[in-house]
Amino acid sequence: MTPEPCARIGIDIGGTSTEALMLNDRGSIEAEVQLDTEPGIEAVLDTVERAVAILSERSGRSLSDFVSLGIGIPGQVDHERGIVRHAYNIGVDELALASAVQGRIGIPVSLDNDVTAAAIGAAQLMQLDGSVAYLNLGTGIAAGFVIDGQPMRGAHGVTGEIGHLAIDPRGRACPCGQRGCLETVASGSALRSFWRADANGRLLMSELAAGDPGAEDAFEALVTGAATAVRLLVLTLDPHTVVIGGGLRMLGAPLLDGIRDTLDAWAAASPFLANLNMSARILPLPANSPAAAVGAALSYRG
Amino acid sequence: MTPEPCARIGIDIGGTSTEALMLNDRGSIEAEVQLDTEPGIEAVLDTVERAVAILSERSGRSLSDFVSLGIGIPGQVDHERGIVRHAYNIGVDELALASAVQGRIGIPVSLDNDVTAAAIGAAQLMQLDGSVAYLNLGTGIAAGFVIDGQPMRGAHGVTGEIGHLAIDPRGRACPCGQRGCLETVASGSALRSFWRADANGRLLMSELAAGDPGAEDAFEALVTGAATAVRLLVLTLDPHTVVIGGGLRMLGAPLLDGIRDTLDAWAAASPFLANLNMSARILPLPANSPAAAVGAALSYRG
Ligand SMILES: [Zn+2]
Ligand SMILES: [Zn+2]
Repeated sequence: MTPEPCARIGIDIGGTSTEALMLNDRGSIEAEVQLDTEPGIEAVLDTVERAVAILSERSGRSLSDFVSLGIGIPGQVDHERGIVRHAYNIGVDELALASAVQGRIGIPVSLDNDVTAAAIGAAQLMQLDGSVAYLNLGTGIAAGFVIDGQPMRGAHGVTGEIGHLAIDPRGRACPCGQRGCLETVASGSALRSFWRADANGRLLMSELAAGDPGAEDAFEALVTGAATAVRLLVLTLDPHTVVIGGGLRMLGAPLLDGIRDTLDAWAAASPFLANLNMSARILPLPANSPAAAVGAALSYRG
Repeated sequence: MTPEPCARIGIDIGGTSTEALMLNDRGSIEAEVQLDTEPGIEAVLDTVERAVAILSERSGRSLSDFVSLGIGIPGQVDHERGIVRHAYNIGVDELALASAVQGRIGIPVSLDNDVTAAAIGAAQLMQLDGSVAYLNLGTGIAAGFVIDGQPMRGAHGVTGEIGHLAIDPRGRACPCGQRGCLETVASGSALRSFWRADANGRLLMSELAAGDPGAEDAFEALVTGAATAVRLLVLTLDPHTVVIGGGLRMLGAPLLDGIRDTLDAWAAASPFLANLNMSARILPLPANSPAAAVGAALSYRG
């Protein structure tokens, strides 16, 4: 049995871990691997190379069986030129990542912002038509868009950077230099700065279960900020579906219900908002969906 | 000489006046007419019918020479079904406008939100490629989007309703039921509610020239709000170009310069914003550009 000639690799380079997978030509995941992300250019390139070698081994395919490799990475991505800038949490200021990887591995490489890649992957995995906004609730807060199957990549690689929209002139100072950014309220980094330095989704869940009042306030702020982001996305792009993803999605049904209840409360106070059907547009990304890696794999157009 | 068979009509139904024009198949405006808008369903239909008759007369064409009629109208527009809802400033709660006009005139009719139509028209008139956000500064504040030549119409006809995004939890109450909406700061209706009940662009210009301090405060609020809208559009859709249009664009160079200076001041305080080149993305809609009527004419796809 000869392997199919259309296997694609997708790699999601995150701040702490790198997820890689191989899609066969029916779009099914045939091999997967997760590696730690080490910061810095050489370390990132080494990790990508190692991930490809492991996928090759696990799938019993040689490099020449892979038609493309797509990478999703945080930061400002120039998809056309394959350059990433300001990917600070993986220690990369500027890197022509696509050509560097292509030089090492010999497969055509495409590059996307990780949240845009996740939007592409979520639309595919969840079989969503029409317009899709993917809201990533992680260390930061950002969005990606797929309109009628086409990812929106924008002019300068900053599509969906809604975390740095100021929503309160008297809000907290943000590392970006502004004040009251959405990300200072509703994100993992916000939880760490105003609740607990060791905050993460798991800790927030256990402290909520234990009835900790600080955790309840933090959760409430997160829910309100996420609902604010949904309202923003609806009033800007008017998407059919808003997918809630990112690390904080592990908070599960209470998070989703909290966002929907907040949107419904706003709608009850505003006929204008009621008319938007905001809460009905929300869907959670299913658990254990490697949306960004799948989206990165699908992003390459030869 | 027989008239070309591809003449298209575009009509922009505004709160106070209705602009209609005819494009020939080279896309040039061949006839124009402006009529007062009278509120109510019958009056709107009569005005459209009268405008078509006048265009027919002025261009020396019979109705059968027109291949399509496109209408831009304020409110929540279902482009697929040709229905407009909540067009309160022209006295229409819900109307199947496309079929009603088609029934009267016998030409295929398409319907768009007026700001979306203006985005289509601006992209055409200004020969803009890539992604275009059109920011309408009028009685309200709203945006329309054209991405690689394709208008974004959204899922429920509320694309670009950014005027009702809350940017200040302690801001003014908005008729929509929320508080601190962008529209309560930067719009014609905002000028009328917090400056002068008879405010309009012309009055604001003359009072600014006369050095009236209240006018200066009002202008400053308008400029800051418009800059906030540009930042919002850039951080959401990352468009190549943000076109500034709408009735308040008559404030001219001071308005454009004010918005650019505000964006540059924000950029000076934030490396993140500096990186976005916000002020360089702005272009004014040229004076006397009937963007919405042209866009409505071009919107129909037979
Ligand atoms: Zn910020
Ligand atoms: Zn409002």
